[in-house]
Amino acid sequence: MMINRREIQMEWGDCDPGGIVYYPRYFEYCDACTNALFAKAGFPKFDMVRNYDIAGIPLVESSARFLIPSQFGDVVIIESSIAEFGRSSFSVRHRILKGSELAAEIIEKRVWAKQIRDAKSADGAAPGPVRYKAEPIPAAVRQKLSG
Amino acid sequence: MMINRREIQMEWGDCDPGGIVYYPRYFEYCDACTNALFAKAGFPKFDMVRNYDIAGIPLVESSARFLIPSQFGDVVIIESSIAEFGRSSFSVRHRILKGSELAAEIIEKRVWAKQIRDAKSADGAAPGPVRYKAEPIPAAVRQKLSG
Amino acid sequence: MMINRREIQMEWGDCDPGGIVYYPRYFEYCDACTNALFAKAGFPKFDMVRNYDIAGIPLVESSARFLIPSQFGDVVIIESSIAEFGRSSFSVRHRILKGSELAAEIIEKRVWAKQIRDAKSADGAAPGPVRYKAEPIPAAVRQKLSG
Amino acid sequence: MMINRREIQMEWGDCDPGGIVYYPRYFEYCDACTNALFAKAGFPKFDMVRNYDIAGIPLVESSARFLIPSQFGDVVIIESSIAEFGRSSFSVRHRILKGSELAAEIIEKRVWAKQIRDAKSADGAAPGPVRYKAEPIPAAVRQKLSG
Repeated sequence: MMINRREIQMEWGDCDPGGIVYYPRYFEYCDACTNALFAKAGFPKFDMVRNYDIAGIPLVESSARFLIPSQFGDVVIIESSIAEFGRSSFSVRHRILKGSELAAEIIEKRVWAKQIRDAKSADGAAPGPVRYKAEPIPAAVRQKLSG
Repeated sequence: MMINRREIQMEWGDCDPGGIVYYPRYFEYCDACTNALFAKAGFPKFDMVRNYDIAGIPLVESSARFLIPSQFGDVVIIESSIAEFGRSSFSVRHRILKGSELAAEIIEKRVWAKQIRDAKSADGAAPGPVRYKAEPIPAAVRQKLSG
Repeated sequence: MMINRREIQMEWGDCDPGGIVYYPRYFEYCDACTNALFAKAGFPKFDMVRNYDIAGIPLVESSARFLIPSQFGDVVIIESSIAEFGRSSFSVRHRILKGSELAAEIIEKRVWAKQIRDAKSADGAAPGPVRYKAEPIPAAVRQKLSG
Repeated sequence: MMINRREIQMEWGDCDPGGIVYYPRYFEYCDACTNALFAKAGFPKFDMVRNYDIAGIPLVESSARFLIPSQFGDVVIIESSIAEFGRSSFSVRHRILKGSELAAEIIEKRVWAKQIRDAKSADGAAPGPVRYKAEPIPAAVRQKLSG
């Protein structure tokens, strides 16, 4: 499996009054790391969306374990790779490492999706709701990320 | 001048390890309050953008004073109103109040703008850069917000 | 079980270039809703931390399902309640509702914890790492949140 | 003047539905760059706070100009340096560059400050309000950052 490694330094503004990284920030880091993994495999987001005529790879499920807190100034490595491929969905595993220790692990389940969006909402006040429709993951995407 | 008042409770995740609200959060609150001010005047964002065929009201300048820090659990009132109208730009003043004290003040200078966006960047790898072109502010917008 | 309900309006800055709420924001909302649930039960965070001499209720696991995306201007209700009590850990279930539909569900597993923090790191350059030690959840906390 | 340069890649989650970086994010980047500038001068935050017995360098004013929007995938360089030293306050100038163009400029006015915090609020429900007291900037700090 292709693995993307990204080094991240925890910033003051990422931390809460308890002095540790506020947990939603880990999901922000991992979302960015998923984009970086796809880019490394040859599928930078804007390209991929245009070339395959999809809306993106929205999240449908996640699970996470937080083992060791981090604080301002800590440097972690996030190792990201595909954990599993389904027909139109896939899972990305992010291992957040402090030195050789696993500090946290986040698994994102995402779908390869087109967007279905009504041009107009019922009352005309806003665009219609955004809906996604899962599509089969192309073989090329599957191969490159498995490589 | 029309004034919008919004009550905001400071959350744990808005605060930094020093125990006070991390200052970029104030800009998030004020951006939301600008949208609320326009909505109150009869111009909810999606409507306004569609009806006037603009991209939005992007920020071009800001200035801020921070007088009294806030912490988790504090409740502030943000009073927002137009401070000044130019031909195609305008300023929104946000007064952040703790009880009767001014805790902070943020002034946003924004433009009434269309977007100019190349369909494609030179290398085809991403959409072209986003650029804005200022347009005269419609009389109706000016009147309602001054009312 | 005690239930806390909070209405949240999705803001422009909560949404990504796909036009939908950026998923880490849901975890921010839910963290705030957990604090609100405890406050409703009579345990506002600062009080609780001081009275029970704990560091807080840090997250150790989470799982989430995202069913219906939201966009700027959407209003959701988050219903939060304790899903399960262990000896020193507990789970909070957050149901994110758009009208009568379940838009997302987040389960947070947290621990009732004291902090163990070395006064000084080995190299003197930063405070020592933050560690938590789980403690039994007091009966009063258990009772009030179950009421 | 000492200058710190940091390269920042704009992430998907930093951008709003208009496709451009949501402006409060620039303040987050610059806050981190101020900490990096001080660290480069020999004053990493935790050290500095302990060695000089201060609470930190809280922001009291800011001003900003936004000239060229950025979008997901753009890489900017932020050049940070002290623009001015007062007795107990100072200004940090952050120039946000896209290639050779100035995309934005943020000036932060900060104070060298001790914290004055009541142990307990009037109603016992929360810690007392956080207040800061400006102190003269030490000569060593002034010299290193000017070097």
